[in-house]
Amino acid sequence: MVTAFADNEIGYLLEDFILQGGVDTRFIKWKPYDGIGRSVRNGLNFTERGYGVRGAVGVSDRANTAAAQLKPGDVDWDGIFGKCGARWLHTGGIFAALSETTAQVVLEACKAAKKHGTMISYDLNYRPSLWKDIGGKERAQEINKEIAKYVDVMIGNEEDFTACLGFEIEGNKENLSELNIDGYKRMVEAVSATYPNFKVIASTLRTVKTATVNDWSAICWAEGQVYQGMALDGLEILDRVGGGDSFASGLIFGLLSGKDYQTALNYGVCHGALAMTTAGDTSMALQKEVESLMKGAGARVQR
Amino acid sequence: MVTAFADNEIGYLLEDFILQGGVDTRFIKWKPYDGIGRSVRNGLNFTERGYGVRGAVGVSDRANTAAAQLKPGDVDWDGIFGKCGARWLHTGGIFAALSETTAQVVLEACKAAKKHGTMISYDLNYRPSLWKDIGGKERAQEINKEIAKYVDVMIGNEEDFTACLGFEIEGNKENLSELNIDGYKRMVEAVSATYPNFKVIASTLRTVKTATVNDWSAICWAEGQVYQGMALDGLEILDRVGGGDSFASGLIFGLLSGKDYQTALNYGVCHGALAMTTAGDTSMALQKEVESLMKGAGARVQR
Amino acid sequence: MVTAFADNEIGYLLEDFILQGGVDTRFIKWKPYDGIGRSVRNGLNFTERGYGVRGAVGVSDRANTAAAQLKPGDVDWDGIFGKCGARWLHTGGIFAALSETTAQVVLEACKAAKKHGTMISYDLNYRPSLWKDIGGKERAQEINKEIAKYVDVMIGNEEDFTACLGFEIEGNKENLSELNIDGYKRMVEAVSATYPNFKVIASTLRTVKTATVNDWSAICWAEGQVYQGMALDGLEILDRVGGGDSFASGLIFGLLSGKDYQTALNYGVCHGALAMTTAGDTSMALQKEVESLMKGAGARVQR
Amino acid sequence: MVTAFADNEIGYLLEDFILQGGVDTRFIKWKPYDGIGRSVRNGLNFTERGYGVRGAVGVSDRANTAAAQLKPGDVDWDGIFGKCGARWLHTGGIFAALSETTAQVVLEACKAAKKHGTMISYDLNYRPSLWKDIGGKERAQEINKEIAKYVDVMIGNEEDFTACLGFEIEGNKENLSELNIDGYKRMVEAVSATYPNFKVIASTLRTVKTATVNDWSAICWAEGQVYQGMALDGLEILDRVGGGDSFASGLIFGLLSGKDYQTALNYGVCHGALAMTTAGDTSMALQKEVESLMKGAGARVQR
Amino acid sequence: MVTAFADNEIGYLLEDFILQGGVDTRFIKWKPYDGIGRSVRNGLNFTERGYGVRGAVGVSDRANTAAAQLKPGDVDWDGIFGKCGARWLHTGGIFAALSETTAQVVLEACKAAKKHGTMISYDLNYRPSLWKDIGGKERAQEINKEIAKYVDVMIGNEEDFTACLGFEIEGNKENLSELNIDGYKRMVEAVSATYPNFKVIASTLRTVKTATVNDWSAICWAEGQVYQGMALDGLEILDRVGGGDSFASGLIFGLLSGKDYQTALNYGVCHGALAMTTAGDTSMALQKEVESLMKGAGARVQR
Amino acid sequence: MVTAFADNEIGYLLEDFILQGGVDTRFIKWKPYDGIGRSVRNGLNFTERGYGVRGAVGVSDRANTAAAQLKPGDVDWDGIFGKCGARWLHTGGIFAALSETTAQVVLEACKAAKKHGTMISYDLNYRPSLWKDIGGKERAQEINKEIAKYVDVMIGNEEDFTACLGFEIEGNKENLSELNIDGYKRMVEAVSATYPNFKVIASTLRTVKTATVNDWSAICWAEGQVYQGMALDGLEILDRVGGGDSFASGLIFGLLSGKDYQTALNYGVCHGALAMTTAGDTSMALQKEVESLMKGAGARVQR
Repeated sequence: MVTAFADNEIGYLLEDFILQGGVDTRFIKWKPYDGIGRSVRNGLNFTERGYGVRGAVGVSDRANTAAAQLKPGDVDWDGIFGKCGARWLHTGGIFAALSETTAQVVLEACKAAKKHGTMISYDLNYRPSLWKDIGGKERAQEINKEIAKYVDVMIGNEEDFTACLGFEIEGNKENLSELNIDGYKRMVEAVSATYPNFKVIASTLRTVKTATVNDWSAICWAEGQVYQGMALDGLEILDRVGGGDSFASGLIFGLLSGKDYQTALNYGVCHGALAMTTAGDTSMALQKEVESLMKGAGARVQR
Repeated sequence: MVTAFADNEIGYLLEDFILQGGVDTRFIKWKPYDGIGRSVRNGLNFTERGYGVRGAVGVSDRANTAAAQLKPGDVDWDGIFGKCGARWLHTGGIFAALSETTAQVVLEACKAAKKHGTMISYDLNYRPSLWKDIGGKERAQEINKEIAKYVDVMIGNEEDFTACLGFEIEGNKENLSELNIDGYKRMVEAVSATYPNFKVIASTLRTVKTATVNDWSAICWAEGQVYQGMALDGLEILDRVGGGDSFASGLIFGLLSGKDYQTALNYGVCHGALAMTTAGDTSMALQKEVESLMKGAGARVQR
Repeated sequence: MVTAFADNEIGYLLEDFILQGGVDTRFIKWKPYDGIGRSVRNGLNFTERGYGVRGAVGVSDRANTAAAQLKPGDVDWDGIFGKCGARWLHTGGIFAALSETTAQVVLEACKAAKKHGTMISYDLNYRPSLWKDIGGKERAQEINKEIAKYVDVMIGNEEDFTACLGFEIEGNKENLSELNIDGYKRMVEAVSATYPNFKVIASTLRTVKTATVNDWSAICWAEGQVYQGMALDGLEILDRVGGGDSFASGLIFGLLSGKDYQTALNYGVCHGALAMTTAGDTSMALQKEVESLMKGAGARVQR
Repeated sequence: MVTAFADNEIGYLLEDFILQGGVDTRFIKWKPYDGIGRSVRNGLNFTERGYGVRGAVGVSDRANTAAAQLKPGDVDWDGIFGKCGARWLHTGGIFAALSETTAQVVLEACKAAKKHGTMISYDLNYRPSLWKDIGGKERAQEINKEIAKYVDVMIGNEEDFTACLGFEIEGNKENLSELNIDGYKRMVEAVSATYPNFKVIASTLRTVKTATVNDWSAICWAEGQVYQGMALDGLEILDRVGGGDSFASGLIFGLLSGKDYQTALNYGVCHGALAMTTAGDTSMALQKEVESLMKGAGARVQR
Repeated sequence: MVTAFADNEIGYLLEDFILQGGVDTRFIKWKPYDGIGRSVRNGLNFTERGYGVRGAVGVSDRANTAAAQLKPGDVDWDGIFGKCGARWLHTGGIFAALSETTAQVVLEACKAAKKHGTMISYDLNYRPSLWKDIGGKERAQEINKEIAKYVDVMIGNEEDFTACLGFEIEGNKENLSELNIDGYKRMVEAVSATYPNFKVIASTLRTVKTATVNDWSAICWAEGQVYQGMALDGLEILDRVGGGDSFASGLIFGLLSGKDYQTALNYGVCHGALAMTTAGDTSMALQKEVESLMKGAGARVQR
Repeated sequence: MVTAFADNEIGYLLEDFILQGGVDTRFIKWKPYDGIGRSVRNGLNFTERGYGVRGAVGVSDRANTAAAQLKPGDVDWDGIFGKCGARWLHTGGIFAALSETTAQVVLEACKAAKKHGTMISYDLNYRPSLWKDIGGKERAQEINKEIAKYVDVMIGNEEDFTACLGFEIEGNKENLSELNIDGYKRMVEAVSATYPNFKVIASTLRTVKTATVNDWSAICWAEGQVYQGMALDGLEILDRVGGGDSFASGLIFGLLSGKDYQTALNYGVCHGALAMTTAGDTSMALQKEVESLMKGAGARVQR
């Protein structure tokens, strides 16, 4: 993981969680804490889980974070993709929107990855609130369009493609609850015509029935073909935070492991689903649990 | 809030919860605690939440409470409705049934409110166990009929109107699961003929599928017309305690804010629904959250 | 309860839980704890509750337990069924599979019970992992067939009857989700022909939709007739562990209380269902709560 | 245990705690719960643990309890001390002060115990708040003097002997922090002259340094001799509630087990001390743990 | 309370805690939350309680807070001290150091208070980390010296007087563990000569033995005389955070209630001590509990 | 860390805790879990924290663990000390006593370490219960004497040196509460004469006053000289488990970092002390917190 933390107990706690996942922490940049958090702090995200008709509520508390202060030159990307041999770069539109400099850091990373032949995935993840004070949708498009030129696996829903990359798709209902396969195909064809570097374009499909029950699936396009992921209708949700990120990591795992596109997509769908059955935004599912769900194993007790 | 508490740590805890809600505690009457609870105590209500086929269980522990000992003359109602300018009096059949004197306190309050032109709402809330030792259903009717003469907004289900006010309605199934609008209309017409002072008559409609899933709605009559509230079918329930009271407060909020009857009724339905998605009997929902549900916003995460 | 514990704090905790249920602990055999658990220990069972598509996970930690070390001669069965007048012996295939000696203890207990005319029930509960190292399915059949000769009330699903007693049933789908009554009848007729001592043969019927929602019912055969238990479709599950044992105890309660077979079966279904709405593997339901569910009382709040 | 509970979930919880201790619950009298707690309820006692200079705070909530409603004739004392063979009756001044009838129940029990030769212990435990509304100190003396005629083992501190039995002791500091052995001897000699039936007179000695640190010991007189218990100076207190009751049960255990007076007294001191190192008012200490403290084993880890 | 919060769930939680204390929330300024916390956020303070040799650890997370953005003109001080009749202004060096503008807000408030004859207290509370980026100790002195001209009750320890106001005191040990009364007197005489407006100068005296045990007292000078507060040696500390603020509020309560200086000082000492026996930085002690400690009541259980 | 775990959820949890500490998990050997724990399981250790006169209680549950089944040949020690370059081997008498084969594994590891010039430390940690069934004290000596020939840093108290290595020391009190420096010197001189390979001999010194207060220090001998560690008298203990292991890791850290013996010893004393102020047996102290305690920084709040 490449990021930056303020050098205080909150940062140590974050490091602890990262270590717990078996993730390498060597590339975390520690910035000196000033004793008050005025010059640099660690980002926080508060979530109140939803239940039934009461939706989840989130408060994002990301002013002045060490991560937002990252700037070109801070990270030894060549070392990471070269000597260390990192096989994949995943980042997205939230990090790019943290500050003027983080967008530049994303570009710098993408260029270095490209140079070393490292695969790049990017989750558009458009959040209007993030762009509001730093140029709005116009600036979001400018940056995302530049980044998109380097991306191999582009993740986003239709709203993301519209807001971040300027594509308009007609004929689909707003929340994709009834997917218009033809419309989707037309959109990805337009997208891939503009960005011939995209090898995979993937979107999660979520229909919120209540905070506790969602229909959940995903769709992807790869090498001219559209794949529909497993449809987990009526999925029971404990904590929806992390569903999208766990979809991305499941998909990337599948692709990195050399699975076919359909299988990789289902890793994404099932990993995302399992992440939403546990508290917190990370997935604690084992690979075998994801695969068991992919085989439709239902939810019998294992003993 | 007008009530009485024993002057001990349980009472201070109750005061703390009331303050937390931004409610005025000046009119709480503190009665000296005797060190054992023999002469006066604070009421307790124990609830075990239900789940699926296991219904919620409640133990009401209300012997000898300071509130039950309230008697006419204890409260300066003229000050409250006059100088302090309280705009609404809400009380109900549970308080009226606590003791012989609390029924008198309700009447005293209603008369004072009427004198000052303050609106009065009353939730019939018939509980046979409360009336058992103090005169039974007969006494319940005697008192409620007297109180009803002062009420502007009367809340109750059909069983309440029958048990407390002596009206019989035919043609409806017991639990109102399939509402007979015509029967309801006939009942409220009979009721409003007897009590021409009623401006609004409102009932919650709940069909218990399991402890975890209820159909929830409400209906009201106002100025000769019947309004049906939003129907929240398949509502997921975390803790059903407080649904009825939160319906009442939502409805009153709507009426006090000058909304039309349909809107006020929906405030009641949605506020009651949200109260049942959180633990405890009070609602922690923000006004904007209630209004978002009224617009059918579902349960998407807010960020 | 007849079992054995290592004489340490874990054992005292177990005793505490047993006492809490009002169960007699005189017949627990305490084996000296060696300070490390090498010679004897207490069994543990870890469960992670499931949720939606995430199934429950269990880790059984039963090496070297005091219970597994029980051997013929350790228990005064004659005293228990004679002087103490125990009215019923319930045991099952998990205890029998703990070790070579526990199977002998089951047989010893059954013979003593038979001698005193005590009723015997046995839950086949086939778990391949238990038999793996001590003779496999072959040995399981050898032992269970011997035990079966003494049993009055035999509990098991079709897989159990096949694996433990060697019966094959055709025409039913694997998980019994669509019960084939005729096939079931044919199976129990074959079973009762072989074991004319069986007075009752009972099976729970569970269709796992997700970890949170199961269809739950049971079926039994008694005196030549098949009884179908109440069908609790769409049962909301908090913690499925203990459903089967609580079915057994409900059924036994009904039979011991002299209820008819249909009623006894419904005690089993409803007690098992309630056990799955609470945490932990024991039932905390009151008899009146079970009976209320048997009357279809739904899940209204009791007050 | 002989007492009475209201037949509701609070009562079932109490029964559960009693069973957990391995105590016989046959003699608990269950009174019908009226659904509101007006006619009968279960007593509650709220405690906020102290810490350092912040003393513990207790709220006693005992209005209208089933126990307070016990009256002569409710309990089959002859059966308890006769056929059931109870070997000891322990009760005290708190139960006696619950109501006019509980004092009569104590006398009734004492007379029955005497008839069967059962030992009787009584903890004076004077609490002014309990007697305030039912006759005050005068009535307390009248009742306690009558009860004292039957007692074998009388427990109380000097304030208790003064308030309940009318003895005045001079020369001791109020809180006994510096024990005046001679004064104590003079008092117990006067007491035993008046009540020649007393076989043992025992008092706990507590000097409160802070809520977290007390000096703790006890003293007793038996057959003309005074015994000083182990002095646990600087005892670290987690929750002081239950220290006195656990002293009494330790002392009674010692006497029932036929230990000499010095040893029995130390059982009381050490059991009381251990009860104050755990949360709640009951002792969860094992006999061997009490005995280990009696041998001065300190607090090394056992493994 | 006069402050500013970002209009999000963290802010609502803070409001909730303030309401709970019965404090008026009308003067809280709500600033619009931007959905990410970039433009404005609510301050957080993380504390890990200490234990024995492990000291408490705090992380102050105060970048970009709504409070730090308060500027002259934001608050209607004339209304607060005039029409609303606030009787006392308390603020201190932490708020003054949050930003360039908060120092100006303090001065604005002091001038308005002075105009209306409102008493002013100020806790110097020097924290080098707060001043580091906004001018350091030099700027701290410049601002504090200006503010000091308006203050009636100045609170601070010797380090504060040196760092904030430029006074040097000789002859005292650094941590005041052995108070040099003469040196203290010389210092306050020098201070009061420079600031003749000071009516009271007060300092807490804390000797940290371990995180769990402190010696705690305070000293004050008023009208030419030095008062020594109660010395709570060996005070057991649960959570030291809030000791200083609770000292200030106790002292102010005493002065506002018209107590003499010695008594007011002891309110401060005892209120601060009790705050340190509970979790969190606010005091939950009742007035009667503070007064009981002032009378040296120790820590007996109250019942 | 080199050990073995059963491949189940308990093992994954252990791995999680190890990762959290930033420790390399590559050398953990995963043994297949059989679904019941009969062939292999993970070790558990239950602890009830002590308080005051109530000592901590531990239940060790180590039958049949994967670690106990480790045998020579299972671990690639040459790879670990060679290619991987591990700089230090630390193990001890508990692992050596788990089974007949673990003693052999220790010897195998020591020989490999010696070959590669890796430093070896060993904590004698004599527990009679561990050796009881596998040869007793005689076997313990036989094995430990063989292991000792390879050790550079030997840790143990006098009882350990006597029981494990057969040395008798005269003139010291049993629990070392009053350390006899001369006696200690004579012992270590005898020890180092027998084992000239010992570079450092270290012992913790603990005097248990109560479970909550211990005197804590350590002593070591190195290159002919005796060093006394900081004496933390009256150390407040939250959870004593892990004090000894954290002493060892602190000492090793000091020696590995090239500190002088006195400093390394104090790292051990202070790290062990801090581990006993937190729950659980591992230390969560930062290096700077250990060093701050070494400088006698007391327990002031850091902010």
